Amino acid sequence: MHAAPISCLSDVEIAHLIHEDVPYFDLTTTILGIGAQPGRITFATRHDTVICGTEEAARVLEQCGARMDHLIASGTFLPPREVFLEATGTAHALHRAWKVAVNLLEYTSGIATRTHAMVVAARQANSAAAVVTTRKMFPGTRALAIKAVQSGGALPHRLGLSETVLVFAQHCAFTAGLTGLVQHLATARQTCREKRVGVEVETIEDALLVAQAGADHIQFDKLPAAELAAAVTAVRQVAPHIVLAAAGGITLDTVATYAATGVDLLVTTAPYFGKPADIGATMIAL
Amino acid sequence: MHAAPISCLSDVEIAHLIHEDVPYFDLTTTILGIGAQPGRITFATRHDTVICGTEEAARVLEQCGARMDHLIASGTFLPPREVFLEATGTAHALHRAWKVAVNLLEYTSGIATRTHAMVVAARQANSAAAVVTTRKMFPGTRALAIKAVQSGGALPHRLGLSETVLVFAQHCAFTAGLTGLVQHLATARQTCREKRVGVEVETIEDALLVAQAGADHIQFDKLPAAELAAAVTAVRQVAPHIVLAAAGGITLDTVATYAATGVDLLVTTAPYFGKPADIGATMIAL
Amino acid sequence: MHAAPISCLSDVEIAHLIHEDVPYFDLTTTILGIGAQPGRITFATRHDTVICGTEEAARVLEQCGARMDHLIASGTFLPPREVFLEATGTAHALHRAWKVAVNLLEYTSGIATRTHAMVVAARQANSAAAVVTTRKMFPGTRALAIKAVQSGGALPHRLGLSETVLVFAQHCAFTAGLTGLVQHLATARQTCREKRVGVEVETIEDALLVAQAGADHIQFDKLPAAELAAAVTAVRQVAPHIVLAAAGGITLDTVATYAATGVDLLVTTAPYFGKPADIGATMIAL
Amino acid sequence: MHAAPISCLSDVEIAHLIHEDVPYFDLTTTILGIGAQPGRITFATRHDTVICGTEEAARVLEQCGARMDHLIASGTFLPPREVFLEATGTAHALHRAWKVAVNLLEYTSGIATRTHAMVVAARQANSAAAVVTTRKMFPGTRALAIKAVQSGGALPHRLGLSETVLVFAQHCAFTAGLTGLVQHLATARQTCREKRVGVEVETIEDALLVAQAGADHIQFDKLPAAELAAAVTAVRQVAPHIVLAAAGGITLDTVATYAATGVDLLVTTAPYFGKPADIGATMIAL
Amino acid sequence: MHAAPISCLSDVEIAHLIHEDVPYFDLTTTILGIGAQPGRITFATRHDTVICGTEEAARVLEQCGARMDHLIASGTFLPPREVFLEATGTAHALHRAWKVAVNLLEYTSGIATRTHAMVVAARQANSAAAVVTTRKMFPGTRALAIKAVQSGGALPHRLGLSETVLVFAQHCAFTAGLTGLVQHLATARQTCREKRVGVEVETIEDALLVAQAGADHIQFDKLPAAELAAAVTAVRQVAPHIVLAAAGGITLDTVATYAATGVDLLVTTAPYFGKPADIGATMIAL
Amino acid sequence: MHAAPISCLSDVEIAHLIHEDVPYFDLTTTILGIGAQPGRITFATRHDTVICGTEEAARVLEQCGARMDHLIASGTFLPPREVFLEATGTAHALHRAWKVAVNLLEYTSGIATRTHAMVVAARQANSAAAVVTTRKMFPGTRALAIKAVQSGGALPHRLGLSETVLVFAQHCAFTAGLTGLVQHLATARQTCREKRVGVEVETIEDALLVAQAGADHIQFDKLPAAELAAAVTAVRQVAPHIVLAAAGGITLDTVATYAATGVDLLVTTAPYFGKPADIGATMIAL
Repeated sequence: MHAAPISCLSDVEIAHLIHEDVPYFDLTTTILGIGAQPGRITFATRHDTVICGTEEAARVLEQCGARMDHLIASGTFLPPREVFLEATGTAHALHRAWKVAVNLLEYTSGIATRTHAMVVAARQANSAAAVVTTRKMFPGTRALAIKAVQSGGALPHRLGLSETVLVFAQHCAFTAGLTGLVQHLATARQTCREKRVGVEVETIEDALLVAQAGADHIQFDKLPAAELAAAVTAVRQVAPHIVLAAAGGITLDTVATYAATGVDLLVTTAPYFGKPADIGATMIAL
Repeated sequence: MHAAPISCLSDVEIAHLIHEDVPYFDLTTTILGIGAQPGRITFATRHDTVICGTEEAARVLEQCGARMDHLIASGTFLPPREVFLEATGTAHALHRAWKVAVNLLEYTSGIATRTHAMVVAARQANSAAAVVTTRKMFPGTRALAIKAVQSGGALPHRLGLSETVLVFAQHCAFTAGLTGLVQHLATARQTCREKRVGVEVETIEDALLVAQAGADHIQFDKLPAAELAAAVTAVRQVAPHIVLAAAGGITLDTVATYAATGVDLLVTTAPYFGKPADIGATMIAL
Repeated sequence: MHAAPISCLSDVEIAHLIHEDVPYFDLTTTILGIGAQPGRITFATRHDTVICGTEEAARVLEQCGARMDHLIASGTFLPPREVFLEATGTAHALHRAWKVAVNLLEYTSGIATRTHAMVVAARQANSAAAVVTTRKMFPGTRALAIKAVQSGGALPHRLGLSETVLVFAQHCAFTAGLTGLVQHLATARQTCREKRVGVEVETIEDALLVAQAGADHIQFDKLPAAELAAAVTAVRQVAPHIVLAAAGGITLDTVATYAATGVDLLVTTAPYFGKPADIGATMIAL
Repeated sequence: MHAAPISCLSDVEIAHLIHEDVPYFDLTTTILGIGAQPGRITFATRHDTVICGTEEAARVLEQCGARMDHLIASGTFLPPREVFLEATGTAHALHRAWKVAVNLLEYTSGIATRTHAMVVAARQANSAAAVVTTRKMFPGTRALAIKAVQSGGALPHRLGLSETVLVFAQHCAFTAGLTGLVQHLATARQTCREKRVGVEVETIEDALLVAQAGADHIQFDKLPAAELAAAVTAVRQVAPHIVLAAAGGITLDTVATYAATGVDLLVTTAPYFGKPADIGATMIAL
Repeated sequence: MHAAPISCLSDVEIAHLIHEDVPYFDLTTTILGIGAQPGRITFATRHDTVICGTEEAARVLEQCGARMDHLIASGTFLPPREVFLEATGTAHALHRAWKVAVNLLEYTSGIATRTHAMVVAARQANSAAAVVTTRKMFPGTRALAIKAVQSGGALPHRLGLSETVLVFAQHCAFTAGLTGLVQHLATARQTCREKRVGVEVETIEDALLVAQAGADHIQFDKLPAAELAAAVTAVRQVAPHIVLAAAGGITLDTVATYAATGVDLLVTTAPYFGKPADIGATMIAL
Repeated sequence: MHAAPISCLSDVEIAHLIHEDVPYFDLTTTILGIGAQPGRITFATRHDTVICGTEEAARVLEQCGARMDHLIASGTFLPPREVFLEATGTAHALHRAWKVAVNLLEYTSGIATRTHAMVVAARQANSAAAVVTTRKMFPGTRALAIKAVQSGGALPHRLGLSETVLVFAQHCAFTAGLTGLVQHLATARQTCREKRVGVEVETIEDALLVAQAGADHIQFDKLPAAELAAAVTAVRQVAPHIVLAAAGGITLDTVATYAATGVDLLVTTAPYFGKPADIGATMIAL
């Protein structure tokens, strides 16, 4: 289920990242007068890593004038000290690309590795529960974050607001609360037959209310795992085909417990932040 | 030293963030038929926070069709449950803007709050040492990250490669090592008189070598604090005017110890990652 | 269910449309020396029209330097000779904006009006069947086309490939045909619990096959209406909760007949092409 | 006179079209787990077609990761069932590109084919009359529409407002009508010696007035063909070198009749709308 | 004939210019801690100037957070020490905008002032000859350069290659020379009835050749003025309605002499380069 | 110290330059019917030139469909009549690229050649003084201008406001003048340890004042050379390690005189304007 080995960033986006870091040239390389010398750059893991961002880092290197010699596809699990990307070029090309490439690799591999760990933990507790990630990635990093999630073995939950129906308390502020919403649900489902109509709730009572009103999908927000298990059983009795999701506080520490409640989906933001993967980059003159 | 209260993202960048999350419309609001109702959205802290991103969130709300009623400038320290941003508009406008705005606020306020904590800790240990942040922010988020760092009371270290001179081992791969570099240093300083010529080193010996060769600035990479204190003393004896920086492993836990070594600069990546600030958003119908 | 009255094109996209038509200035106005004179431009319908694009045309006029005096929101049904947009400005401003604005109004109102006619026709035949439009709009016009569809009272079917599951024969080329697909279906539904898994078929036999294999949604491609009615009955017997759609050849002429077959969705491309609405623009000097 | 076989859309514009349809990945291909399989996509005509958009569709396929095997240049006339584009790649690559490519081909080939039919019809009636197309293409599609027009054997009339002089009634609103304009004409021609100064009129009387005042070019708007023939004769008597154009209502049905009036130019919008060409795309696994 | 007082650069282009100069903030203002203080910036001429770029400079100031207090429109002639632009804002806003605004004003006013001088000189020698400027402005500055030319009282010659017909020796390389071209000319004029077909020549003989072949427009490249006067007379005898232009070496020093030859058009690149206008900017605290 | 031989403009920026000049196609080539013929374009110097822009011109040619045959890197000194760029392609490709490529070459080579002349002149007078160029290039041309400066053997002075500290009179408007500034200087240096804190002054007295207050760098604005020589001596006595720069009026004529004063830096705008280099382009059919 890994992304195909092409860059998820367009050439313009790659050029923008390079320009942000090197608007004109590497001044240090320039004043040392070493820019024209040929060299090789090698990237290697420093710990167990689900590697990600290699296709994007490769485009960075190529746009800077280097030539790719070796690349392992995003989504591959690697032990420490494994070389997964290598390129040759002038010192000018390599120094221009270096930090931009490392940064891409470290942040996306961090997300992929954390996602993978959660997928493994969830699967062990309940092989039918899927880990899906929220839209709460760092603003402006959606394409990279989604690729990293896929590389880690999960799928994104919602891509945006235009394609899915999920009713929050913030919508119910305009429907006279959940009671008012319940009266809208049948119409809403009719208007939008192709989609599952989902509702986020915070209590078992609300879950039963919307399940009986015909919701196709319920998302439980921050329900403690024990309560959630009870809720899953209760709701499934009145609506056997409903899709149930747990959200809020789903982390590597809690994901197995929540998976064991029997929900279908574990909705999490946790992989998006945390320490970037540690990746080593070395250069040699040729 | 806070940024002026204008958005660090251009209108195009704001439009891009909205479009990423809401390419066309909020389907949920649309099928519930509530889009035209007027309402108010209110953002409040949930813990001690150096707030950031309010100017950008305001532009998000305005571009979505809402009108700002209240805004506290980025860089302000706030206790929990403080309302710092308020806007009114149709349910369509508020729902389109909601999550994009929250995301901007949570990530940047997280960075600002962590930066602030490190600045305070460093200052207590050594009032002359400045915390400065690296270029290793999430790819594509440089403007937001730098604004957040300033909001937290620090400055960025280098903005990019074109404007400062900092020699890394990766440059020395092309100068026949540090020994070769030492022979280049005088010329390099002459070529580029306006800039301080800096060199990153990993040992006291290397530091003394480049200090004697005339470097204006030395950055120590991952030197244990005790060794660093010795190095600072030794180097200052041969080069009293040199600027000394510590980098690698500078976090909230270690920053005071490193500040106490007497370095001028504490170079850190730590504020960029970690949990986003927790911010509450509520809507009411008007 | 109409779009909120804000432009579906960003200010950059509006500027691009103006620049395409008026890269520098209106040469005719310039050499006549009339540019500085004040005037008013008035846009009116010439036939029954579901008006669309007024919010975008207003932004065109404003970016060219005119001031809006009157605007009727997209999605409003208007008889002939109804003034729905009016602005004042210099002859330079009005001439710069004129044709760009008319073009936006005529193409989008044409789509909105045709969509509306199909929605009315379908509803009369079967009030439970929804008209939804395909992704086959003119390349590069998605935002305008989707707004026009909403203005006409319908919703878009799929926004793109990343958010919905719809298996075509072109996917089955890689699954050893429909038979092979049937073996994948259970896994696919498990992997992607939140989405309805849909399959496009061309015969009743294939429809029954995938319905029995657990598809949540079947799209019939170019099935004659009589056959389709039989298929709907047959499939509903084995899968009462399945969502059924008709696609291929759904036009204003055929939509009622297809609606009467009892399908849930009428998937159509027809509103996207056809003659633009005829809209009159007149200018007077003030 | 066909466009050279390179894409009229830049790589950024191609990337935008792909992103619009596939913001992240083809979910269907992903959950079926077929993405890595190699395959071939083949595009063929279904009726007589002046093919267009092959160079752009090729760039779509290449940006998605496929390799072109066969391409017939835009502007070629093809009978039904002719294969004109073929590419190989993974199922991921082919499914990402498929609909974007088909859409480009169908809309532009539709325009090219309709343009060609009008060019042929006009030429048979009057070999000296040229078909030229207006600026009233779908907003945002100018480059594609102009390429399609050229592929069909015609030229665009005006590219925009900055490069040609054509006085409309909407300009005369600021010159005290046509009478006032007549007094400006000599100055206007002097100011802008390189360009032909044109005026749009609706009656023979107005045509004679502006011809006598020195207009280089007259465009007749919606004059019935019989009246137009008389006007052409009358105007040529007073201004033998003048360029005469017919506009308004010039379609495939009327173009021959209008060509026979003896005008130099037949200005039409008709090719821009109408049914897209029908093009078949098939995939096979390799 | 001056441009209307709106910016010829879009908001995105303005934002780009600011970002180029101030990617994040004015470091000097920041470390002096003066950013929040209110102030006023005043721009004034230092010599006779046809002022240009005020509308663009105003947008720079506004985007940086300042408020405009006074603005004189582009195209106005001003004596020395005339204040033509004034704005108020924080020191942050004013310092961010300062140099970007000055640069826009100085380069465009330089072009406008030089254009104006050439227009005046030409007009005194021959009131019927028009100064028009080439496409050879600094790459990427076309919109500003064309606005400056109009502000100086002239018009641009050709905006680009898609809208005018001008045959150069470089085209004749593919027509078997000028002799071959002559055989194409009748067809070319027929294909493109609306446009004047122009040819650039270097000798009287070639001019007569193409005039007799029916060219509508001849451009003489680098012909000495005396020869040109003879050529104008000779060509007008065989083609009284032809448009004649002089190009190559037309500067402020030579323009009157060339105008006196009787040509219609004086095609020049000279205004584009030369010293920018000298403009003073002063700030005061409020 | 020349830039590496890759384009300093991204592919999008190259595409923009082409589109500006050839929005759709070369009309002349099109109506002559010569577009498909193969040919070669050759660019050669016409005088002593430090060539620049060849990498960018090559990308223009390639994007237009031509193939590069020969290229001499930017920064090479060439005598007259030296061929430095050659490409083959159809007449369509060559004509589309021609003027855009020439324009890039002429403007950037002009800057490079003028820069080079100033570097040589300065070096002869004082081998320790470096020529550096200001930010006052034509708005929007920074990347090209900086590349040209480097090709001519110099470096840019400041890239923008965010990375260097240089106090102008316009900052002192907010510090109660230079006297007030002097009180801020120690703090400013402490806040920003890595940078040299610079101040621009107009008199020897002010220079001594800020030197004694600890400025790291002084820029003398428009001081006559004789006074400057005295100032250099005086300031160096109180601050031996200070960096001294001369700005204002530094041109090819004055640079040697100013270099002889003993300053470290000669800050100049002069290379940015002046006549573009004269470059010949010839085409032949193949």
